[in-house]
Amino acid sequence: MSTSVPDPSPDLLQRAAAVRRSAMALGQQSDADRRSAVLAMADALEAAQESIVAANQTDLQAAASEGLAEALVARLKLDGPKLTAAIDGVRQVAQLADPIGVRQLHTELDTGLVLERVSVPLGVLGVIFEARPDAVMQIAALAIRSGNGALLKGGREASRSCAAIMTALQTGLAASTVEPTALELLTSREESLGLLKLDGLVDLIIPRGSNALVRFIQDNTRIPVLGHADGICHLFVDAAADPDLALRVALDSKTQYPAACNAIETLLVHRTIAPTFVPQAILAFEAAGVELRGDQAAMALGVGHAASDDDWSTEYSDLILAIRVVDDLEAALEHIRRYGSRHTDAICTNDPIAADRFLAAVDSAGAYLNCSTRFADGFRYGFGAEVGISTQTLPPRGPVGLEGLVTYRYRLRGQGHIAADYASGARRFSHRPLPL
Amino acid sequence: MSTSVPDPSPDLLQRAAAVRRSAMALGQQSDADRRSAVLAMADALEAAQESIVAANQTDLQAAASEGLAEALVARLKLDGPKLTAAIDGVRQVAQLADPIGVRQLHTELDTGLVLERVSVPLGVLGVIFEARPDAVMQIAALAIRSGNGALLKGGREASRSCAAIMTALQTGLAASTVEPTALELLTSREESLGLLKLDGLVDLIIPRGSNALVRFIQDNTRIPVLGHADGICHLFVDAAADPDLALRVALDSKTQYPAACNAIETLLVHRTIAPTFVPQAILAFEAAGVELRGDQAAMALGVGHAASDDDWSTEYSDLILAIRVVDDLEAALEHIRRYGSRHTDAICTNDPIAADRFLAAVDSAGAYLNCSTRFADGFRYGFGAEVGISTQTLPPRGPVGLEGLVTYRYRLRGQGHIAADYASGARRFSHRPLPL
Repeated sequence: MSTSVPDPSPDLLQRAAAVRRSAMALGQQSDADRRSAVLAMADALEAAQESIVAANQTDLQAAASEGLAEALVARLKLDGPKLTAAIDGVRQVAQLADPIGVRQLHTELDTGLVLERVSVPLGVLGVIFEARPDAVMQIAALAIRSGNGALLKGGREASRSCAAIMTALQTGLAASTVEPTALELLTSREESLGLLKLDGLVDLIIPRGSNALVRFIQDNTRIPVLGHADGICHLFVDAAADPDLALRVALDSKTQYPAACNAIETLLVHRTIAPTFVPQAILAFEAAGVELRGDQAAMALGVGHAASDDDWSTEYSDLILAIRVVDDLEAALEHIRRYGSRHTDAICTNDPIAADRFLAAVDSAGAYLNCSTRFADGFRYGFGAEVGISTQTLPPRGPVGLEGLVTYRYRLRGQGHIAADYASGARRFSHRPLPL
Repeated sequence: MSTSVPDPSPDLLQRAAAVRRSAMALGQQSDADRRSAVLAMADALEAAQESIVAANQTDLQAAASEGLAEALVARLKLDGPKLTAAIDGVRQVAQLADPIGVRQLHTELDTGLVLERVSVPLGVLGVIFEARPDAVMQIAALAIRSGNGALLKGGREASRSCAAIMTALQTGLAASTVEPTALELLTSREESLGLLKLDGLVDLIIPRGSNALVRFIQDNTRIPVLGHADGICHLFVDAAADPDLALRVALDSKTQYPAACNAIETLLVHRTIAPTFVPQAILAFEAAGVELRGDQAAMALGVGHAASDDDWSTEYSDLILAIRVVDDLEAALEHIRRYGSRHTDAICTNDPIAADRFLAAVDSAGAYLNCSTRFADGFRYGFGAEVGISTQTLPPRGPVGLEGLVTYRYRLRGQGHIAADYASGARRFSHRPLPL
């Protein structure tokens, strides 16, 4: 643990304990109660629309006077239409299927001794945003829907917007059966550092921000962190690729939203298709405003800039693409293993053997065939909402829906059963599966 | 991160990379290949039985001359019968159902665009044992069965035993289609510290040892750790308990194996049943050699020693039991929330309302009704083998079988599908569930 992270203040500990108590009560409430609470939150946000937009205006003015970067200002901005869309998003969360109380396992261990495993809320989420006041509404809705309390810390730039949103959310909860203290807003940097040390009170930390933020948090807390690190995604154009299809997929993967973590950073091209494919790709990417950086073979085919070794491990998040010509599928796999971030990697090919090999051997959260890496997203996967994208190896991995906010509990019901009887051989386990 | 943990040596990095390469190849092998490899490991262990027992003898002599504690010597000892049992255990692992390649999700996102989620190996496990050479065989077998490589570090006291076992395991793998370098033994303390910094090469660390070992590891690595911290388990004897049943369950929960993490440390007794139950319990526990420590009310009913506040949060791992008389079910739940470790907690009652409330409200990996907490165990749950017991909140939680050694990957197969078509509204997602 870094010594630069201070211990939580008594005040923070007390507030976090209050959130935990409310969350424990919330975890016992019915699907209908949690659904209604989320809808009440949406209603209250709607009623507070003017004050939220006004608070955001003040944040925006402060940002302008401080010369905040344009991209941050865009994320900070919460005007009427954006707020309406966010409120619609909250209502959609109410419609998602209940993730709680799902029986995952059901086994008779012996006559009268029955085991079940049931999904339950995690408890309390700690959420740290950079700017993005709309994310506060989304995560708060997901937390309440799944029976969890939440401590939320927005960016300093968005402090007035977040406060106005939180007031509305708690007003909404007050009109429901869920305690308003299930949600709590943290405001200072000290509090957000203290949050990292709330082991036992907070069960999961969700950072929504830059790679640097995620890394800092991972290095400074013992609490599990749901967060992606880098998104260094690849598209491999195999010898047996349909060149038109591959070009269409490559363009979409790079340019449809280059700042996204699921955009590709490197295009790998099989050497037998490179002489025809690379020149076509150069034309198409240049027309789309993408700067290309190639290895020697790619430069020999017309790519203007040289790629250094650093390029292969850089997440540009911009209209820049590295191109490398590789000898074969195995060389492509080796490149991905070495430089990739195990996020999402794709192959374009009509060769079923190459496709199967790639889909089996790429050790990433997503392995794709003949489609854009941009599909790596909770909404597109049909999860209805996205808690985040995880690049860790352990589940939850890849785009995470509500299932990232639940865990499970084993329940065992007996009739006086004791372990000694099985140790002695007086009784034997049946381990008979029962219907779920 | 603590600065006391040194960076891994170049030699360790190289060996870990070799394990990772072998593990990636192993992850591609068939169920039959992995099964055969585990059986070949068992055969090789059988052939090496004499040399393993001899190596263990040398370890035991060294332990005796160093005055090792009796409990540690018992764990270190690997004689013929114990080794035969361990080899049987390895063969049983070969018989477990394949945890790899299980399709968990199958959705048509749109015509010709199909998503699936399939279980895959984690990659490489880092396993750190204290003493217990038999655990090396068990974990190595589980690793290979589930398609994972492993770096294993046994206790210093068991160094000769572990080396002999690893030689046999690798001999076995050499006779199979799995590369022997999928398993690697670490021998020095420096190597085991270096292991904690092998992010990117090691996917999960499994500590098998004391709470202090687990905590040290959790505090000093960025790699996920599968391990339990404390096991402070409770049994609550409700007003509506059958006293004979409750006493039988209480005795088993405490005495069947007091050193286990799933043994109870505290007995909570409802005040209306306490006047009859506690005196009975005192007789039975004293006959079983259990020292009782009570609160004032329990002492007034005959418990000889006073429990201090520390007692409620102590894992005795011994024949000591704290007894507290509580006003009601809610007071019992509050005590468990405050002092418990969220491992396994039980209630004895014939009141279905009290039972339901307890099973819903106890926020532990296991919530039990009318049975012993000692059932919290992977074998008893029917998992066939146990990787460990996890007291973390996130899955895997509680007793963890082979599923703790796998993760999943999303595979998306398209026909040139791009995200822009869905953003523009030209195409719409169908999100149609397909059969698993």
